[in-house]
Amino acid sequence: MNNNYYAILMAGGVGSRFWPVSTASIPKQFQDVLGAGETLIQSTFRRLSKIIPQENIYILTNKKYNDIVKEQLPGVKQEQIVLEPVMRNTAPSILLAALKINHKNKDAVMMVAPSDHWIQGEERFGKDLEFAFEEAGREDKLITLGITPTFPNTGYGYIKYDNSKEKRIMQVQAFTEKPDFKKASAFLSEGNYAWNAGIFIWNAKAILNNFRKLLPEMYRLFEKGDAVWNTRGEQQFLDENFHLAHKISIDYGIIEKAENVYMIPASFKWNDLGTWGSLQEQLPQDENDNTLINSRFLSFEAKGNIIRTEKNKVVIIEGLKDYIVLENELVLLVMPKKNEQNIKEIRDKAIEKFGDKIG
Amino acid sequence: MNNNYYAILMAGGVGSRFWPVSTASIPKQFQDVLGAGETLIQSTFRRLSKIIPQENIYILTNKKYNDIVKEQLPGVKQEQIVLEPVMRNTAPSILLAALKINHKNKDAVMMVAPSDHWIQGEERFGKDLEFAFEEAGREDKLITLGITPTFPNTGYGYIKYDNSKEKRIMQVQAFTEKPDFKKASAFLSEGNYAWNAGIFIWNAKAILNNFRKLLPEMYRLFEKGDAVWNTRGEQQFLDENFHLAHKISIDYGIIEKAENVYMIPASFKWNDLGTWGSLQEQLPQDENDNTLINSRFLSFEAKGNIIRTEKNKVVIIEGLKDYIVLENELVLLVMPKKNEQNIKEIRDKAIEKFGDKIG
Repeated sequence: MNNNYYAILMAGGVGSRFWPVSTASIPKQFQDVLGAGETLIQSTFRRLSKIIPQENIYILTNKKYNDIVKEQLPGVKQEQIVLEPVMRNTAPSILLAALKINHKNKDAVMMVAPSDHWIQGEERFGKDLEFAFEEAGREDKLITLGITPTFPNTGYGYIKYDNSKEKRIMQVQAFTEKPDFKKASAFLSEGNYAWNAGIFIWNAKAILNNFRKLLPEMYRLFEKGDAVWNTRGEQQFLDENFHLAHKISIDYGIIEKAENVYMIPASFKWNDLGTWGSLQEQLPQDENDNTLINSRFLSFEAKGNIIRTEKNKVVIIEGLKDYIVLENELVLLVMPKKNEQNIKEIRDKAIEKFGDKIG
Repeated sequence: MNNNYYAILMAGGVGSRFWPVSTASIPKQFQDVLGAGETLIQSTFRRLSKIIPQENIYILTNKKYNDIVKEQLPGVKQEQIVLEPVMRNTAPSILLAALKINHKNKDAVMMVAPSDHWIQGEERFGKDLEFAFEEAGREDKLITLGITPTFPNTGYGYIKYDNSKEKRIMQVQAFTEKPDFKKASAFLSEGNYAWNAGIFIWNAKAILNNFRKLLPEMYRLFEKGDAVWNTRGEQQFLDENFHLAHKISIDYGIIEKAENVYMIPASFKWNDLGTWGSLQEQLPQDENDNTLINSRFLSFEAKGNIIRTEKNKVVIIEGLKDYIVLENELVLLVMPKKNEQNIKEIRDKAIEKFGDKIG
């Protein structure tokens, strides 16, 4: 295993599209949403630790999840958990992590990855990743893994790449966030578009150079901390300065503007588990296309539903088609699957009406 | 208060049409299904104790509910709780209670009443009841309180009575169990039909004479116990003999065959709380005709639903019309209100599949 390889797992999200199962107290990445026997962050950590030394995997998350991370990843030391004092989207956190890693190891090559995605084909994933690390170690490339699209999904970002020469790594030409259906269909016909999975690989120096150039104000803010990285003074510095950083995503702030952005087509299967519908694709279904998570089920004319309850709850459904039925100790939600994009908004309304405790 | 007045509260049922809220461990009569601040049997007991001495009110129930009765009706002594060793429908239990009461008081006049109905207009109820007790004390009449029907309900029993002379008490001509809609409509037009609320008043001697004549085998079986009523030997006698009694209802075994059956039209409002639909009539509704019991509610295009959950559960419903949504710690049931007559059958299937614990 190469000791110059590092990873940053993004684990600060609330997973509000999976509310009420995912909540601010235990977000999706810390739950076994697939009933796989381990939580999503545990799967992700296990997958990465085959390529990257465990002690080089950093968890980027919110202060309040510190204890959950330590509980779920007992091999991780406190210094590997990077706590954002406040939410400032992804760019400031990734800059911070890159500075810390660069401070430790001037030859570091690092990966940034979501902690809550589903991947099948771990061996192929490992090979794609090793190749990306080698490329990013050799040259100042910002590399993303691109997923070959299987249908015109309007919920993903699309990467347009230069396929004039068939290679294992290709230059990126443009990014498009969530196109409409017509546009997405056109992308698929054109054949040189991939889904953006939010998995990036680069050497620490390369991403820091890009921050210096593309987000100079943010870079200057964090540059002041150079003396405190990985020391006891770090937390105080962050408490005083982190909230001053501009809220911006790594995609919008850096990737979409940088030169030398490259894509490696993924050879593994991927799902962002972004919605209940996409989750359902990865789970077994009964003879009427109902997906059950945790529940014991008895049904009469019930088809295509997604049902998740407290462990072993008996659920009896008559006459529901394509609904989501979600239940935990505090909340019961029943709604048509086709409206699942409203869950986030529904969560906001529910919190407004009934208080934070249920969110 | 007249010390010759007695009551038998029927409290042995399982309330399976209210499953999963009503279960074999805590049936409907021991629950506050209306959110009234007291359970149904507590309301019933309180209502009757205005007319009948508390120590003369007997609770007829199953062995396993003995502790619940003592907890919910702390004024009731153990000797007032008559425990059926096995379920044998209503006739054997009522015969047993009548024998015990007659053994205590040869002038006893007794009422038999369900413990899980809803009554509004307690003063009028009291007056009707006092009148019935006076009549039954004077003559060997079997008296039932008849409810003036408000619509052609096909779930009730109908009493046909002689209205040739308008009186406060009228002779019963026939009973009809659950007619079809056409028949029920005809009954309402004819004007001399009432709903059978299962509330009976008679003197103990009169009902015992009827048992002797109409259910002679059962009478002979229990007659053997004459020496043990209200003594320590009673329970052993019942354990040895009760299960030998024929399973038959008081309606079918006695009331429908007896002569001298009379009806007093009820002047109070009544609801048997026999189904979720009938329960809904007695409960407030939100601006979209949704009825909530225990739940905190947020809805989007949800109309006419009945929702009952664990206390304070947040329920969010989108796009359901006229459904029942019932939830407790073990079970979640979602089904169209129009199919509520299937609940009993669904309960049986669920118990078969998942075990007794949920029933």
